[in-house]
Amino acid sequence: MTTTGFQDHYPDDYAHCYGCGRLNEHGMRLKSVWDGPESVCRFTPRPHQTGGLRDIVYGGLIASLVDCHCAGTAAAAKLREEGFQPGERPMPRFVTASLKVDYIAPTPIGVEIEVRARVVEMKGRKAVIAATVSAGGTMTAKGEAVMVQLRETASATEER
Amino acid sequence: MTTTGFQDHYPDDYAHCYGCGRLNEHGMRLKSVWDGPESVCRFTPRPHQTGGLRDIVYGGLIASLVDCHCAGTAAAAKLREEGFQPGERPMPRFVTASLKVDYIAPTPIGVEIEVRARVVEMKGRKAVIAATVSAGGTMTAKGEAVMVQLRETASATEER
Repeated sequence: MTTTGFQDHYPDDYAHCYGCGRLNEHGMRLKSVWDGPESVCRFTPRPHQTGGLRDIVYGGLIASLVDCHCAGTAAAAKLREEGFQPGERPMPRFVTASLKVDYIAPTPIGVEIEVRARVVEMKGRKAVIAATVSAGGTMTAKGEAVMVQLRETASATEER
Repeated sequence: MTTTGFQDHYPDDYAHCYGCGRLNEHGMRLKSVWDGPESVCRFTPRPHQTGGLRDIVYGGLIASLVDCHCAGTAAAAKLREEGFQPGERPMPRFVTASLKVDYIAPTPIGVEIEVRARVVEMKGRKAVIAATVSAGGTMTAKGEAVMVQLRETASATEER
């Protein structure tokens, strides 16, 4: 995987997330990119990331995907608002204030999951991001996250 | 760890969850027990389960803990409603319809996390469970889950 995602531009100190940190060698290293006005993140669960039943994905992973993808989307959207792409300016870092996931159908394991997100609201350091989770073309979950930008990354002057 | 939790009584087919399945050898094997009217689950995150910053827990793990603990609590509460403890009757299995987590403060890594839950509503196959997440005595998150009992476990006559 050599695709560059939003998360690859997080400052080093903020790049240790198990879900999406490029510096977490045990993590999932999720990568989010723009696809027109939306952002997209694709991930194929590991065989042991099952739910109660052996053929579905565990709910905590779905929540993790939504969480990390929405945090990345908030950061990239903040840059985009200022007219920049990730990599062109220091990347802000958003953390989750609130996360809601509605599970619509079981997510099958062994299939690539696609998470798509869009900005619902962006105001000061707060962002509201809505997401959908699909597997094999079927939507299995919907999420919404309230994200808050860390102050220290709001004033960063140099990307590390 | 030889403590018996609610999850140890799930039927085999429903015991593969990465979060709490006793048959998932790679999983976290969360265990929930009653503590008076509340249920409690304790877990010390693994060193790599960090958030963006190296000294905090990633949000997806918090969501996972709330999710699995609420599912287990719903199952045990359903039994309790009928006058039984886990192990005395076949264990029902609840799945998550909706999960909400409010992140109040960063959860430090290296500290045992305690998740507590209580039943807010139990009606037919639906249960609403509220949870709190604490680390080192400080509450760091609150959650609420809507759980739905799987029909097949509602009619189970024998625990496997």
